[in-house]
Amino acid sequence: MGEHRLNLSTLVFSVAIIILVSYSAKSQALKHSPRFLGKLATTGNHFAPPQFHYETRYFQQRLDHFSFSELPTFSQRYLISTEHWVGPQRLGPIFLYCGNEGDIEWFAQNTGFVWELAPRFGAMVVFPEHRYYGESTPFGSAKEAYKDATTLSYLTAEQALADFSVLITDLKQNFSAKDCPVVLFGGSYGGMLAAWMRLKYPHIAVGALASSAPILQFEDIVPPETFYNIVSNNFKRESFTCFNYIKQSWNEITSTGQTYNGLERLTKTFNLCQKLKSTGDLYDWLESAYSYLAMVNYPYPSDFLMTLPGHPIREVCKRIDGFPAGTNILERIYEGVNVYYNYTGKEKCFELDDDPHGMSGWDWQACTEMVMPMSSNQDSSMFPPYEYNYTSFQEECWNDYGVKPRPKWITTEFGGHDIHTTLKKFGSNIIFSNGLLDPWSGGSVLQNISESVVSLVTEEGAHHIDLRPSTQNDPRWLVEQRETEIKLIEGWISDYHQKNKAIFDM
Amino acid sequence: MGEHRLNLSTLVFSVAIIILVSYSAKSQALKHSPRFLGKLATTGNHFAPPQFHYETRYFQQRLDHFSFSELPTFSQRYLISTEHWVGPQRLGPIFLYCGNEGDIEWFAQNTGFVWELAPRFGAMVVFPEHRYYGESTPFGSAKEAYKDATTLSYLTAEQALADFSVLITDLKQNFSAKDCPVVLFGGSYGGMLAAWMRLKYPHIAVGALASSAPILQFEDIVPPETFYNIVSNNFKRESFTCFNYIKQSWNEITSTGQTYNGLERLTKTFNLCQKLKSTGDLYDWLESAYSYLAMVNYPYPSDFLMTLPGHPIREVCKRIDGFPAGTNILERIYEGVNVYYNYTGKEKCFELDDDPHGMSGWDWQACTEMVMPMSSNQDSSMFPPYEYNYTSFQEECWNDYGVKPRPKWITTEFGGHDIHTTLKKFGSNIIFSNGLLDPWSGGSVLQNISESVVSLVTEEGAHHIDLRPSTQNDPRWLVEQRETEIKLIEGWISDYHQKNKAIFDM
Repeated sequence: MGEHRLNLSTLVFSVAIIILVSYSAKSQALKHSPRFLGKLATTGNHFAPPQFHYETRYFQQRLDHFSFSELPTFSQRYLISTEHWVGPQRLGPIFLYCGNEGDIEWFAQNTGFVWELAPRFGAMVVFPEHRYYGESTPFGSAKEAYKDATTLSYLTAEQALADFSVLITDLKQNFSAKDCPVVLFGGSYGGMLAAWMRLKYPHIAVGALASSAPILQFEDIVPPETFYNIVSNNFKRESFTCFNYIKQSWNEITSTGQTYNGLERLTKTFNLCQKLKSTGDLYDWLESAYSYLAMVNYPYPSDFLMTLPGHPIREVCKRIDGFPAGTNILERIYEGVNVYYNYTGKEKCFELDDDPHGMSGWDWQACTEMVMPMSSNQDSSMFPPYEYNYTSFQEECWNDYGVKPRPKWITTEFGGHDIHTTLKKFGSNIIFSNGLLDPWSGGSVLQNISESVVSLVTEEGAHHIDLRPSTQNDPRWLVEQRETEIKLIEGWISDYHQKNKAIFDM
Repeated sequence: MGEHRLNLSTLVFSVAIIILVSYSAKSQALKHSPRFLGKLATTGNHFAPPQFHYETRYFQQRLDHFSFSELPTFSQRYLISTEHWVGPQRLGPIFLYCGNEGDIEWFAQNTGFVWELAPRFGAMVVFPEHRYYGESTPFGSAKEAYKDATTLSYLTAEQALADFSVLITDLKQNFSAKDCPVVLFGGSYGGMLAAWMRLKYPHIAVGALASSAPILQFEDIVPPETFYNIVSNNFKRESFTCFNYIKQSWNEITSTGQTYNGLERLTKTFNLCQKLKSTGDLYDWLESAYSYLAMVNYPYPSDFLMTLPGHPIREVCKRIDGFPAGTNILERIYEGVNVYYNYTGKEKCFELDDDPHGMSGWDWQACTEMVMPMSSNQDSSMFPPYEYNYTSFQEECWNDYGVKPRPKWITTEFGGHDIHTTLKKFGSNIIFSNGLLDPWSGGSVLQNISESVVSLVTEEGAHHIDLRPSTQNDPRWLVEQRETEIKLIEGWISDYHQKNKAIFDM
């Protein structure tokens, strides 16, 4: 299946961009735990006008599928379109997007690939929202649902997968569509859910497209430096001097911050709206920009959360490197991150806190199941050195959320250490699509496992652009990647039809 | 893989005999829901002196693996033997018996096959107890654990599978046995757990021997008459007149019961210790004997719970048929069931209630997840006609236990309707062994699915004799069945070793 390994420059866009660090000052360990940007999806700032047509419906779900505790049910929102569905007689497929950590409408609008495929396949499209996000909050309101560890305790990936399974089983029954094949889609955490659902509920779906799904970013499966190394390499490959300026900048920030009026000077240099409280806040703000830039380091201009040029890291480094010799490092850095934070030039000054209030669902998930160890290596990373320390991570989760993480649970429940064996023996019809520029790619599946568990790797790609709506500017390799995906999905469905026919003919 | 379908007379013994009906007067619907005999395992009556050597240990488990609710942990008992284990360097396998609804020591003692295999394979043996049974009761005591629907709510199959997975993962770590292959064993409900665990946790075990595992006895997958029809056919094939006497006996009992002093007369005819309260109780007592006889209808004498001759149903029918023409039907029936209840002749009279107090764990499971519809067909069954009625079943569960069953949950979580497709695509290294005389065989997998998902069907077999200790009286077909199983398991392990070696060599 070597033909599925696209040897092309690529760019992977993001439906749910994962960012590693929070802008706001977080406790040290949590700061270094991965965090998805899903909650930005709820702010409404970045909502494009709806491009796709669907109905919004609600389904009553159990709060705990795996016990018979008497708990209140909750109303799960889902978006559904039967516009192009050819119906049960013709075994029209059902495309199920595994909603991730945010408002499902946002994911629906950013997952054009699924909508574009629907008419081609005669498919029904369903976007169920992930529990505890968007409108799908238990206990009547987000405020109640996020109140404490007790109310949050049912926010787990396994419960979400059971939600999807129960919903789709009910929908199939209501549409008399018992025999219609279900195809799963998902990007980022949603891609992890799609892959896991294909493994755990093979009787429910015939295949899964798991785009940029870091299912191996747990325990010791991949080195903890992986993520920051990939971000750093994104800069290094553009310019070694740029990489070095950034690497040196942290000490510069710290020493400046320690001088008299240092924080004021940093506030001025970085054009911050409010006076900097600590150099740590500035670290976070910069680290976040670099990590995020690596995720969206694609070769054409885009307008996703931030307006950015094509090859944005190239542009950042051009600015950092472009000053005459002797220019202060921090001046260079400031100019560089302006590409990320202010490419349009409209920002008058910068706010460091994106959301100072409240607890995000993903933070809870990171402190419970989604324990992804992250370090920054002194030599290979341009970030400040940081060694992952589980003990302090655990302490901080306890202090912040009153919960004890279960760092080995995900690999116990879903596997991971022997993923190749597991996928080879059990998996089938899964596409793991990844771009090697994406810092999350290091935690995903980058090798073809079998004839039907396929890795689509695009060397120049970043975070799951394949799921985005197609545009006229799509590079050739992206068009080809999507064509490969479509062919594979067609194969799953036609295999299913053949098997189904064989059963009817018996 | 036709060679794996043993075309031999067989007999399948029982580790955990499943019985369909309770002796005690139960509500109508629940009475007709299947019930395992695991609780008899806790009475200690039938405990053979320990034949096998193991250590007893305890492991702290979460009560709800799928939420982060703050609940008390519980102590799961497990039996372990490393006596024959060749250790981690030689990748010695780990044999894990999936404990079912009862005291784990009882299962250990009745699963000689696993112990006998251990030296041959150089295997570690682990028998974890199923939560809420034996000593593995949450909340400090059985009394507290069984108090009400709230305390019982975590008694589910998925939680039990997670217990096994967490335990074995921890054990492997403690024994530095990460790479040692785990083979699952289970009989009856334990066999269901073994098959499901192989499907849900393929990264944890390399294969499963699921003996007499009725994983399809849910919803409408198999006709609800299946169980009672198989029991009835066990009698019909011995003697059509015998079948007919039993079929006619119910009306005879009812009409006798309605006469003056009728219950006294029945009490006398059936030699009951206490006066019969209702003919229903007698129905239950007889139905239970017939169903159980079918499960243990094996061709040599045995001493499992009851002392029985070989071919016990043949013996029952010999007695029923043996009276001169004109003999009262109830006299015939009484003589017949004496084979089951009093083969030794030691019983002075019969007690109808086996355990009038308390709620059994299996009853709870039957009223929550394990909803197995059962009907008795007017024409093909010798039992009183009964049509499964979900509405009344649900009402009775609500009245009895304050819980609402989820009849579609098992098939949503584990599949079932398209089990052949699922097993073919996903399953591997599973043996479904069944004897066709076993009334539970109708709800199991009776066809070879693929090269490595194999059905071993023995035509004369009853309930999972293959898991019992071997004896000198084992018929040839049983010896051959076990040899086939051993060869298959050897194949799983050698495949695993080869793959493992290939990975090391890379």
